[in-house]
Amino acid sequence: MAAETYSSADFPYDRIALIGAGLIGTSVAHAVRKRAPDTLIAFADNDPATVAELASLFPDNLSGSDPAIAVKDADLVLLCVPVGAIGAVSDAIAPHLKAGATVSDVGSVKMAVLDQLAGKFGPDVHVVAGHPVAGSERSGPSAGFAELFENRYVILTPTEGFHIPALQALTRFWRKLGAMVEVMEPTHHDLVLAITSHLPHLIAYTIVGTAADLEDVTEGEVMKFSAGGFRDFTRIAASDPVMWRDVFLNNKEAVLEVLGRFSEDLSALQRAIRWGEADRLEDWFTRTRTIRQGIVELGQDTDEEDFGRRSKAPVPKPYGD
Amino acid sequence: MAAETYSSADFPYDRIALIGAGLIGTSVAHAVRKRAPDTLIAFADNDPATVAELASLFPDNLSGSDPAIAVKDADLVLLCVPVGAIGAVSDAIAPHLKAGATVSDVGSVKMAVLDQLAGKFGPDVHVVAGHPVAGSERSGPSAGFAELFENRYVILTPTEGFHIPALQALTRFWRKLGAMVEVMEPTHHDLVLAITSHLPHLIAYTIVGTAADLEDVTEGEVMKFSAGGFRDFTRIAASDPVMWRDVFLNNKEAVLEVLGRFSEDLSALQRAIRWGEADRLEDWFTRTRTIRQGIVELGQDTDEEDFGRRSKAPVPKPYGD
Repeated sequence: MAAETYSSADFPYDRIALIGAGLIGTSVAHAVRKRAPDTLIAFADNDPATVAELASLFPDNLSGSDPAIAVKDADLVLLCVPVGAIGAVSDAIAPHLKAGATVSDVGSVKMAVLDQLAGKFGPDVHVVAGHPVAGSERSGPSAGFAELFENRYVILTPTEGFHIPALQALTRFWRKLGAMVEVMEPTHHDLVLAITSHLPHLIAYTIVGTAADLEDVTEGEVMKFSAGGFRDFTRIAASDPVMWRDVFLNNKEAVLEVLGRFSEDLSALQRAIRWGEADRLEDWFTRTRTIRQGIVELGQDTDEEDFGRRSKAPVPKPYGD
Repeated sequence: MAAETYSSADFPYDRIALIGAGLIGTSVAHAVRKRAPDTLIAFADNDPATVAELASLFPDNLSGSDPAIAVKDADLVLLCVPVGAIGAVSDAIAPHLKAGATVSDVGSVKMAVLDQLAGKFGPDVHVVAGHPVAGSERSGPSAGFAELFENRYVILTPTEGFHIPALQALTRFWRKLGAMVEVMEPTHHDLVLAITSHLPHLIAYTIVGTAADLEDVTEGEVMKFSAGGFRDFTRIAASDPVMWRDVFLNNKEAVLEVLGRFSEDLSALQRAIRWGEADRLEDWFTRTRTIRQGIVELGQDTDEEDFGRRSKAPVPKPYGD
């Protein structure tokens, strides 16, 4: 593919504020720097160490600890904080927003975010909640990179009476960053993500903890023989603990609903193992294959064997006795 | 790393028989071809289509459907069939083994394999069961590749009265193929692998099936938004159904034991979500991070973000509206 050049010409915002500078916030900044280089970015983060890091990561952008200052004159305010912090941040910025500004977020749950934003802003501020379905096991300001959203879906969840031009502008923003945009009801978003993201994370966190606690198997053994399947779970279970704590606490109903379904299915397979029901097991294990093929065809994962990670593995030790 | 050249000079076997030509059997063949090119390989597989494929994949090796013929004069007979087929295959080969031959296998469970092999062979045949902890979501004869065992662990489970030179030779064989060899009690192997491999596969199969069955979420949505975590599970759940059916049926006790532990832990986290126990969730999610670091340090996974698979993903669609 030929190198592409970008300009801010068709970018919907002159100035954006990013509140929270973790993986997502800094990835947005890198992507905007790359694709709309003339856009002004103002960061705010409540961690002084992060603010210091931002100054060296993004020397041409504004960085500080006060969100009220960062949002001044911003056309888009993107809240990139853990879901549990949305309410406090919106209180802090509300009096300082520019008329006509759009407030959005990147949280993995949408109903709880909308509840926290409700009634906080005047009628000349437009709220359109959103969620880029993209991530990584890495967290913190140095984890971000410009390509995080490329070929990934961003779900926007406008609510009753939303401002149509604000939704259109936010859609252009995410597309400019390489993403594909879908619009969805917030409650439906929370159910879909409970199965595609929240439950997988909860299960990965659980099994890695279970393995660490098993008295008859050492942690060294768990690590050595992880190539049999376990290591995939450990990547997910290395994700940001605070972010995920907030996700589960703020999408309780949907998570408990899909967790109930999962537990039923697991019990059925457990019973099939106990009673030696070979056909039931083989049937179940066969039909799950088609889902993966669909994901690969949609470009949401690589088709390479073992995610293509073999070539990235450390150089093997010397062979022989 | 400079290209290495190999010879059969320090290879412990002149002739090996591979019974079963799936991912593991053909990977062994590719690795032997690469690292001990003068060694003679005889394949047997009960699927005529596979036998035909073998003739084109390995034109210089012997391939056929009859294991009794393949094992003739073999110094090592490696059973690479699903665990449930070990008994029938060992009956078929027993009368045809060369005196002094070693019989081994590659099964993911060891007690059930040893039970099936017990008493089948004469005193001049040496049984040393084994398990290369290496795999892939791919299966079938075309899935194999020479590097599958490089920097991976192979667990050997010799039993009382084992033949020491046979164990030493089999150790040299796997090291020659790039693997690291560990010796373990078969019952302990079955417990360790239940947590590092069997339970992760069972859980991945379960959640992918649960997602496919959820009435309120379409399969298309599950696929589109899989980048939130789910897609990692689908890779594991695309593994060979027959092989995994046999693993669960033949390691029933250990799998049910660790599944019980997992279910307890999952219930505890479920309760913490329901009752909003933020600290308990954050504590659990924090301590699981160290396990991943250990796996990376042992060279059992790449340290690259997202397994380094991003660069392998399909080319994104054009940007813009």
